Amino acid sequence: MGIRLGDNQYGKAEVRLVHVARDTAVHRIKDVSVTSQLRGDLEAVHTAGDNSHCLATDTQKNTVYAFAKENGGIGAIEDFALLLARHFVGAHDYIHGARQEIHEYAWERIATSDGPHDHSFVRSGAETRTTVVTKDGDREWVVSGLEGLTVLKSTGSEFHGYPKTAYTTLPETADRILATDVKARWRYIGTGADWDASYAAVKALMLEAFATTHSLALQQTLYRMGTAVLEARPEIAEIRFSMPNKHHFLVDLSPFGLDNPNEVFFAADRPYGKIEAAVERDDAPPAGRAWESVPGFV
Amino acid sequence: MGIRLGDNQYGKAEVRLVHVARDTAVHRIKDVSVTSQLRGDLEAVHTAGDNSHCLATDTQKNTVYAFAKENGGIGAIEDFALLLARHFVGAHDYIHGARQEIHEYAWERIATSDGPHDHSFVRSGAETRTTVVTKDGDREWVVSGLEGLTVLKSTGSEFHGYPKTAYTTLPETADRILATDVKARWRYIGTGADWDASYAAVKALMLEAFATTHSLALQQTLYRMGTAVLEARPEIAEIRFSMPNKHHFLVDLSPFGLDNPNEVFFAADRPYGKIEAAVERDDAPPAGRAWESVPGFV
Amino acid sequence: MGIRLGDNQYGKAEVRLVHVARDTAVHRIKDVSVTSQLRGDLEAVHTAGDNSHCLATDTQKNTVYAFAKENGGIGAIEDFALLLARHFVGAHDYIHGARQEIHEYAWERIATSDGPHDHSFVRSGAETRTTVVTKDGDREWVVSGLEGLTVLKSTGSEFHGYPKTAYTTLPETADRILATDVKARWRYIGTGADWDASYAAVKALMLEAFATTHSLALQQTLYRMGTAVLEARPEIAEIRFSMPNKHHFLVDLSPFGLDNPNEVFFAADRPYGKIEAAVERDDAPPAGRAWESVPGFV
Amino acid sequence: MGIRLGDNQYGKAEVRLVHVARDTAVHRIKDVSVTSQLRGDLEAVHTAGDNSHCLATDTQKNTVYAFAKENGGIGAIEDFALLLARHFVGAHDYIHGARQEIHEYAWERIATSDGPHDHSFVRSGAETRTTVVTKDGDREWVVSGLEGLTVLKSTGSEFHGYPKTAYTTLPETADRILATDVKARWRYIGTGADWDASYAAVKALMLEAFATTHSLALQQTLYRMGTAVLEARPEIAEIRFSMPNKHHFLVDLSPFGLDNPNEVFFAADRPYGKIEAAVERDDAPPAGRAWESVPGFV
Repeated sequence: MGIRLGDNQYGKAEVRLVHVARDTAVHRIKDVSVTSQLRGDLEAVHTAGDNSHCLATDTQKNTVYAFAKENGGIGAIEDFALLLARHFVGAHDYIHGARQEIHEYAWERIATSDGPHDHSFVRSGAETRTTVVTKDGDREWVVSGLEGLTVLKSTGSEFHGYPKTAYTTLPETADRILATDVKARWRYIGTGADWDASYAAVKALMLEAFATTHSLALQQTLYRMGTAVLEARPEIAEIRFSMPNKHHFLVDLSPFGLDNPNEVFFAADRPYGKIEAAVERDDAPPAGRAWESVPGFV
Repeated sequence: MGIRLGDNQYGKAEVRLVHVARDTAVHRIKDVSVTSQLRGDLEAVHTAGDNSHCLATDTQKNTVYAFAKENGGIGAIEDFALLLARHFVGAHDYIHGARQEIHEYAWERIATSDGPHDHSFVRSGAETRTTVVTKDGDREWVVSGLEGLTVLKSTGSEFHGYPKTAYTTLPETADRILATDVKARWRYIGTGADWDASYAAVKALMLEAFATTHSLALQQTLYRMGTAVLEARPEIAEIRFSMPNKHHFLVDLSPFGLDNPNEVFFAADRPYGKIEAAVERDDAPPAGRAWESVPGFV
Repeated sequence: MGIRLGDNQYGKAEVRLVHVARDTAVHRIKDVSVTSQLRGDLEAVHTAGDNSHCLATDTQKNTVYAFAKENGGIGAIEDFALLLARHFVGAHDYIHGARQEIHEYAWERIATSDGPHDHSFVRSGAETRTTVVTKDGDREWVVSGLEGLTVLKSTGSEFHGYPKTAYTTLPETADRILATDVKARWRYIGTGADWDASYAAVKALMLEAFATTHSLALQQTLYRMGTAVLEARPEIAEIRFSMPNKHHFLVDLSPFGLDNPNEVFFAADRPYGKIEAAVERDDAPPAGRAWESVPGFV
Repeated sequence: MGIRLGDNQYGKAEVRLVHVARDTAVHRIKDVSVTSQLRGDLEAVHTAGDNSHCLATDTQKNTVYAFAKENGGIGAIEDFALLLARHFVGAHDYIHGARQEIHEYAWERIATSDGPHDHSFVRSGAETRTTVVTKDGDREWVVSGLEGLTVLKSTGSEFHGYPKTAYTTLPETADRILATDVKARWRYIGTGADWDASYAAVKALMLEAFATTHSLALQQTLYRMGTAVLEARPEIAEIRFSMPNKHHFLVDLSPFGLDNPNEVFFAADRPYGKIEAAVERDDAPPAGRAWESVPGFV
């Protein structure tokens, strides 16, 4: 019997970077958080504290900042993550793989009486755009996503026909509130998509599918959102969702002599439903290591 | 020497209420969190556990839900808070005062290919609208506000001329990023303003002042924001701000042979500047108990 | 009509400082977060962006770090806050007052097979120790406290005898779970107490009172906790609490043919009761500005 | 080309359950959060909104509460998760698999002048104990863990010998603070361990290894912690860690004429190092689906 090192990766997490493009008086800003992780010949640092292959996490951080300058800005986060991954794997023979995750926060110009301001911005929207680029030797995968997109339907959602067991008390309903925080990740085919256009389209497709699907189950809504994306966007191989069912309970007002025809709801925090699924093309290229990270911390 | 009860209040916090107005097929929703607190003849419940004057916090919660129905919805949160405060103080002779705080979360209709959807919504914006209505016997005050409005200027902000002491190392700058999360509370004169119009105007005035002020100090920007509000909105007596100076530090790229002319910044979390001030009319009616709560937990 | 500056203060928030006392091989550590705020002749910085009286928040931060060294460590957080307040007010004629708030996080030595380790520590406990020192010219106040002390009684708590109104549905109970997160602040008489001993005693007194009080209302438990502190600790003038009633609802298991004699509970998040009160000596010196801050953000 | 459903699971998340064992006057409490997720013949609910195989998440919640009563309490969380998983898979032919995750929060008796109290408790420690039981047909895996165990060494940590590249600025050090929040998951061999004893031992072994390892890299400390566990606990097949390197930067006090021989540190929030690795027996049984969940959200 022996003990050995298993899968591992290390790096610098949440490098907060704001880039200002000031080539004209009308500034543009990009606000991101970069998590750089590397994989490679890292046995010795674990077993013996030998750091000769341990590119310092501080160096990874410096590289992120320097590349934002050298690259003339961030560009699409997918391209910036690819740039970093290719640099780290290409520049050091003891580094064989990289996982570069970037989150982007949205801003818009402040509307003034003279129009949109040149250099003043307000945070917009609630959702965060994400990407995870994984590189393993010569192979590369791009998984993009969003999180924190909160949506609600005040009608157009039913739930019935589920199994009745000894532990079932939930009444069936033909009209309920359906609400969720959409968390999605989609895997691209290849590494050359028009990332910004694709992101905007995926978000719009998901919102439209959520809005226009008459829901019989949150799973069904999720699946429609996924199929809408895959049908319209050939550059995407699969899409995965983790969506809470954020319960809105009808308040019983009958003790006060009041009816409540789906008007007054209690928005509960916990527990919540948790619906997770992948929707995929049957002819998609294999996922390889696109979804891999190291530990089992979900 | 004796020991006695001092200031006190109690109630139910964060009653999460979603109201759906479904009088037409085009639904409207209001999403709020209500914190109801009461003051009154509450000596006995503290000293002897005698609950005869302790209107249960559960009853306060029920009242919030019932009134949302009886009132035909929430309306402006200021009106709903006044309604609750007047009910609690009026209906029970042992209740002399009330503090009703409401937070409102913004939603907008999902844009579909057929236009804005009738009953599907997406959370919009990041800021929360707030109000605190305080009632003490016959006197009433309304303090409204917002929080979570995050803004940034990529230029148009200087900081110099501050005292240099033995502990000063900060270099002066004629060009820095200025960023903050605006948290504001403003006290109304009277209880009859057009709350929704006033809120929209205050937010727009603050944003415009932030955008168009060439800043020499965050305090100066804050004061301009306050004066802009007071000059334009006669219904407001005073406005208070608590605004972090969210530091964005220029990254030193010179070790890598790169200059950095205000392009690449590190967005720091802590510590941060903390700037707090009130801006007020010199002829405003006195604040009375408008700002009071009980403990010293800021 | 004119517009003027009202109350204001500014400074650096959450200066995270860890001090290691290494005068012997048995290290001692202190882990604090310091928020320094100053008051003074600050009209010009607000109205004109004139920073000549604006001691930079960065300078305040530097002072905190330098004093940790010059002072040979932190000592009791109350003493360190007094030291800072006296320095800021004494060293600059345009600074008339200060509010220095410090939070302290607890650590204990890691227990090894060779006994407590010399220089390895593990975070202990959940509560945070706090102090707020306020200085206004020559006057000084110390308000210390704690937060995050979570306690629960599985029996020994009743709730009945409260008013029954048209909106009351809560059933009376002679046996419920009582749970809360204790948040307390106590004002000292003078500035020379044995702070560490006093803190330990107050915490123990509150815990003992919570445990041994047969509760008829959370207010009554709170008041007993306050009186226990004031009776035993003459150095304390008053104590204020903000305590949530963290509801634990008995789950109805009767649909499954099971009784539930106070065994299985659902621990709810929101809404929660919110009980706030001050307990004070009737001969205590006046509070002065001890509890003041600027905005009405509770 | 077609579109199909990929991996999926669904259930109820964060069912907050407190169980009170009151068979004697000396109560015992267990405080847990249960997340139940199921896998099975769930194609139709996704593609057609057909719920006939969709055991409602509300039913899963009810089952958790009912089993806490029927089972006479929770017992070790691993046993309770196994009990739930076996029930769900065994009772419904359309359910083929389950993932049951439980988090447990620690409490201890309040110490009073009469000794430990019978029914009053205070939250203790900061770490959360966790388990994930996965069942796939007849196969079962138990992965337990902890998170939120925050540790710090004030000396006994070096970092040098790492590669120097064009982007390296970090100076080597022979003495730094090493601090981390330990997040660990370990996979058991079989399903019959003495869970409570094993948990206590693993935690103690990790703490002792952290304390007594003279660190040359956080990776090395991690690996020692893992090998200490595997050497002493034959019931464990592998252990995975995700550990931030929580940087404590030495403050430069030289501008103030002060030296700083590793006494005064700034505790930074972000960015932080992120070190992740598995340590495993070379003869361990294969992991099967023990670490699987559905989406790629790490």
